[in-house]
Amino acid sequence: MKPFMDQNFLLGTPTARTLFHDVAASAPICDFHCHIPPKQIAENKPFRSITEAWLGGDHYKWRAMRIAGVPERRITGDASDLEKFEAYAAVVEKAVGNPLYHWTHLELQRYFGVEEPLTSRSATSIFEHCNALLDDGMRPQELIARSNVRLLCTTDDPIDALEWHEQLSVRNDSGATILPAFRPDKVLNPADADYAAYLENLKEVSGDTVGSFADLKGILVKRIDYFHEHGCRLSDHALDTVPFARTDESKLDSILNGAASGKPVSQESLVQFRTALLKFLAEEYSRRGWTMQLHIGAIRNINAPMFAALGSDVGCDAMNDLPIAAPLVGLLNIMSEDQPLPRTLLYCLNDKDNYALNVIAGALQRDGRASHVAMGPAWWYHDQRDGMVTHLRNLANVSMLSEFIGMTTDSRSLLSYTRHEYFRRILCNLLGDWVENGEYPADIELLGDIVRRVSFENAYRLFV
Amino acid sequence: MKPFMDQNFLLGTPTARTLFHDVAASAPICDFHCHIPPKQIAENKPFRSITEAWLGGDHYKWRAMRIAGVPERRITGDASDLEKFEAYAAVVEKAVGNPLYHWTHLELQRYFGVEEPLTSRSATSIFEHCNALLDDGMRPQELIARSNVRLLCTTDDPIDALEWHEQLSVRNDSGATILPAFRPDKVLNPADADYAAYLENLKEVSGDTVGSFADLKGILVKRIDYFHEHGCRLSDHALDTVPFARTDESKLDSILNGAASGKPVSQESLVQFRTALLKFLAEEYSRRGWTMQLHIGAIRNINAPMFAALGSDVGCDAMNDLPIAAPLVGLLNIMSEDQPLPRTLLYCLNDKDNYALNVIAGALQRDGRASHVAMGPAWWYHDQRDGMVTHLRNLANVSMLSEFIGMTTDSRSLLSYTRHEYFRRILCNLLGDWVENGEYPADIELLGDIVRRVSFENAYRLFV
Amino acid sequence: MKPFMDQNFLLGTPTARTLFHDVAASAPICDFHCHIPPKQIAENKPFRSITEAWLGGDHYKWRAMRIAGVPERRITGDASDLEKFEAYAAVVEKAVGNPLYHWTHLELQRYFGVEEPLTSRSATSIFEHCNALLDDGMRPQELIARSNVRLLCTTDDPIDALEWHEQLSVRNDSGATILPAFRPDKVLNPADADYAAYLENLKEVSGDTVGSFADLKGILVKRIDYFHEHGCRLSDHALDTVPFARTDESKLDSILNGAASGKPVSQESLVQFRTALLKFLAEEYSRRGWTMQLHIGAIRNINAPMFAALGSDVGCDAMNDLPIAAPLVGLLNIMSEDQPLPRTLLYCLNDKDNYALNVIAGALQRDGRASHVAMGPAWWYHDQRDGMVTHLRNLANVSMLSEFIGMTTDSRSLLSYTRHEYFRRILCNLLGDWVENGEYPADIELLGDIVRRVSFENAYRLFV
Repeated sequence: MKPFMDQNFLLGTPTARTLFHDVAASAPICDFHCHIPPKQIAENKPFRSITEAWLGGDHYKWRAMRIAGVPERRITGDASDLEKFEAYAAVVEKAVGNPLYHWTHLELQRYFGVEEPLTSRSATSIFEHCNALLDDGMRPQELIARSNVRLLCTTDDPIDALEWHEQLSVRNDSGATILPAFRPDKVLNPADADYAAYLENLKEVSGDTVGSFADLKGILVKRIDYFHEHGCRLSDHALDTVPFARTDESKLDSILNGAASGKPVSQESLVQFRTALLKFLAEEYSRRGWTMQLHIGAIRNINAPMFAALGSDVGCDAMNDLPIAAPLVGLLNIMSEDQPLPRTLLYCLNDKDNYALNVIAGALQRDGRASHVAMGPAWWYHDQRDGMVTHLRNLANVSMLSEFIGMTTDSRSLLSYTRHEYFRRILCNLLGDWVENGEYPADIELLGDIVRRVSFENAYRLFV
Repeated sequence: MKPFMDQNFLLGTPTARTLFHDVAASAPICDFHCHIPPKQIAENKPFRSITEAWLGGDHYKWRAMRIAGVPERRITGDASDLEKFEAYAAVVEKAVGNPLYHWTHLELQRYFGVEEPLTSRSATSIFEHCNALLDDGMRPQELIARSNVRLLCTTDDPIDALEWHEQLSVRNDSGATILPAFRPDKVLNPADADYAAYLENLKEVSGDTVGSFADLKGILVKRIDYFHEHGCRLSDHALDTVPFARTDESKLDSILNGAASGKPVSQESLVQFRTALLKFLAEEYSRRGWTMQLHIGAIRNINAPMFAALGSDVGCDAMNDLPIAAPLVGLLNIMSEDQPLPRTLLYCLNDKDNYALNVIAGALQRDGRASHVAMGPAWWYHDQRDGMVTHLRNLANVSMLSEFIGMTTDSRSLLSYTRHEYFRRILCNLLGDWVENGEYPADIELLGDIVRRVSFENAYRLFV
Repeated sequence: MKPFMDQNFLLGTPTARTLFHDVAASAPICDFHCHIPPKQIAENKPFRSITEAWLGGDHYKWRAMRIAGVPERRITGDASDLEKFEAYAAVVEKAVGNPLYHWTHLELQRYFGVEEPLTSRSATSIFEHCNALLDDGMRPQELIARSNVRLLCTTDDPIDALEWHEQLSVRNDSGATILPAFRPDKVLNPADADYAAYLENLKEVSGDTVGSFADLKGILVKRIDYFHEHGCRLSDHALDTVPFARTDESKLDSILNGAASGKPVSQESLVQFRTALLKFLAEEYSRRGWTMQLHIGAIRNINAPMFAALGSDVGCDAMNDLPIAAPLVGLLNIMSEDQPLPRTLLYCLNDKDNYALNVIAGALQRDGRASHVAMGPAWWYHDQRDGMVTHLRNLANVSMLSEFIGMTTDSRSLLSYTRHEYFRRILCNLLGDWVENGEYPADIELLGDIVRRVSFENAYRLFV
């Protein structure tokens, strides 16, 4: 029996151990997609408690607690920090096979030096131990520094003034470059109830009017340039469904003006508008050498009472299962009619689409550019051990694993950086299995190069 | 090499063996969903032969025999019991990797003490050996008693008088509580050719008229109450496709009256009728604390000549592959507008939907109730080793394995109870692998609790 | 650590080794579906270089090279053979986990006696070594003979005169029977721009007119008979989407005549035409005892610039993800209304459909015929180790692995026959794992019979 989560956690072979300890462990982190608020990093305030750090915004934990029957009061309600922590401990102790189990204990080990398992029995003492350390100066920038993060992209709306990024460019002890990423989901959703208000904000930020689709494009170019000046090299789009329908400029003007005056937008118009605007944005990204991320297939806020009570991003999103291959092929071809596709990362939320997306990506390469269109990391519900193994094996089977962009946390928490370690252990173990099984030569130089690239270099090259 | 199917069958580690032999093996069975006719249990007649017990209604075996080229005469035709048994033996001996191979030998070992493999060579002697034992008093109730079944739910139509359940409440030597389950598929299918006749039966049973949708609901309330008085706590629906469309009461009256007079029902009307009636039923289940089972995604009777010759449930059903996430989210939200959802179990027939359904379920929990909406066991074509492993891992990854409802036989055969043993071995082996690989502490108390819950307690709590 | 790709490559247990070395290794090859040009075999010209043999038409290699960032010039362009080979070597050395890695080294070992890994460092010397051997008389027929191929089906259009097959019937030193296979994709696509021209060719070959759908059927009967006389027993259809819609003969005449005069064909007409013609063809195949192959779910030529530059089959095809169960069930039922279905092999390009197709097949058996409707081998992007293991396990779980048709190369390359060895190693390893884990008896006679059938006999029986 292997000891519980020791230094060789998930490393089943000597080759895996060599690759992890000699190569992967020391590689820096390029966290190119996360949801950490730049304000939190810039303000650099200490945490009130481990409960705030862990349960303040982590909908993975909330879901597990709800499934285990914990009352909402002890999840997102007015229970005390200790009550909530104890409730979580009583759930996680039974969460065998869940990524929360490993994330929790990696974070306890790496940030707090806690080696014993979190259980109902150990909850109170671990709570106090962690709080004392947090109180003793374990602030956001220190957490980032201790995690060996070289570069970190936040997620920002086009109207964002990026004031926290500007402040971080003056004072930042994290050791990491903190860059914005451009996520124009709101401007792409004219059917939203608050779209007119959003356009007003956009006008205000830009100082321009929005009387036509051309105007809107003009404003977005300004915002893209503004983001570019602040170091942004990455955009991001939530494609819950994949739009694919052409129309002409006058129809686009009419859709935009209708939405600006609060009129309902038909499904057909919405798809046309999104297709046209995505094509435009892709071209702008391509011109600037940006990378475009497409997050495909979520179905959001499916629990009406919970949405009314708590809003979005509270653990009530699911994965859709619509066919996506044909519309995605159509959209990507429209996007590349006038400019080459930008470097593109596809994220799929339904594992059934893994192969289809990998194969589409492989057919849309750009001459002489490595991995120009490619899968992003295993996303959300698949960001767990089995999901990552499947993802890596699929990449290896029908693409080139050595060109894989690697891991990103996609997290709201500053304690999530151990997920990179988790990923690297899984990667090294997979490579080790192949080598020890006689399927690939024990060529540590070549293997180490693959590990370095997938752990850090391939992602970092998006920015240099 | 491990010996063939010995006491440590499928148990690859010491931890797995401890968990199985010390905890799982002795846990009783709560078989909350099966298709055993209550008449068969109540009448308690001996079997004519092992052929009757095994090949009388087992379409898994029929399929394998047809694929292997056995003439239908020796499957469901007029061949002798010995001929059929020999034909099955000649197939099963080659059925490597098929669950039939393990089911067959578990049943031979546990009920008949036969340790040697069933082959063409051993067929005749095993046939005679089993028949002798069956003839020597191995009747239905004794088989249930020997299987350590604590509770068993049959599958019953709303018009069923439950006379065999009443008889069993007087005389039952099985040691198990035998309860009805409410399966109103027929009343939900107004497009069926015999719907008018079904409504006539329903009127007769209830003594009421069915002039309106409200009348139909009234009758169903009476039948639900009648089933509740007989201990029923579980309903069951075949959702071959997932209906999701609203309409008003007058349209529902018109659909019902059209169907009652034998008029064709349009696809749109059918979906509206089913949505409305399912919403009503879900509310009634919720009020009474029942559990609602939704079996999603079958496509039935796809072989026209076989259907003409043999009817339904003969091995000619398949799995559909339509998108189901959005309509299911819609239906479950409609169902929960006026009453909280009842405790709900989702069964998916296409493994591609496993994650999507797990994640939808996790987003629809009820405050303070464990696993309120959840996946049922791996269903039908996925009720095999790989299917169960995938199912358990998916549950662990995005839900809470410890809250899993566990196994049910879903079988027509009284010899299927060894499938619970099969499931428990697979469960304990998975847990053992995690522990021995250092991924979860070797905390036998916590692990034993998980095993007990998933083997029996979580299911039994549906009824107490 | 197991040695790199030695004689026990992929064989993890003693049982696996026994089955492979004693049974599988010596079984001949029946390559019932490939894309080797019959002209190439008949002409029997030597290869110019290993680059021509490997990179002349292998879009798997091209894809990997593009993903790795190799300029197109060194893939399909005007770079020298050595430049291209070196570019491939620099990619394959990093292609860990990709089937190309194993295919490459199996071919180097078996055909060229090269045991060292192909890397950037070893590229030049391996290039020269292989070229010398190729130059020394390693011609197509010798390669086939060395590969122990008993039978090989090419892929041919109905208008093909089969002159190379006739030539091969006179002079053929490969030791293999070389038969044509009937692939009428063009005649089934009246929406193609060159359909009218194709009909002209068909008229010319047959000497008949094509004024009606009945005329077209008449011509196809003649061509089928012509192919039958040349030994053809197998047809093949690319069903990128599965057509299922009925119409009447006059509509079919009108669609055909419209297409013949170059008019556009609506999507609805296309589906009707394809359904009707497929039904007709299936009946003709059935009458003659042919096997019908249906390749389902590709989405082709998705990269517009590459299609313009290089045409079809250049690595820019992907997999679609539309629902297929219901239309396929519909089509197969239409096909079997007037004649029993021919022996039918289903290929699915999207692994999500694996179980659905297996289960549909299992429900459509013909009385007393083994595996009458069944899955073909793991296709294209799934023709790799993980894909084959999943495919075999799915077959075992819901069908009968012993009846599996086994491997086919589906390749354009004469060096691909080692893929049969690769498949057989995977098959034997899977069987070995089951046996050594106590899941199936160590009955080497029964296991050997299964290995022989799946390696060769089940496929060869299509022809005898």
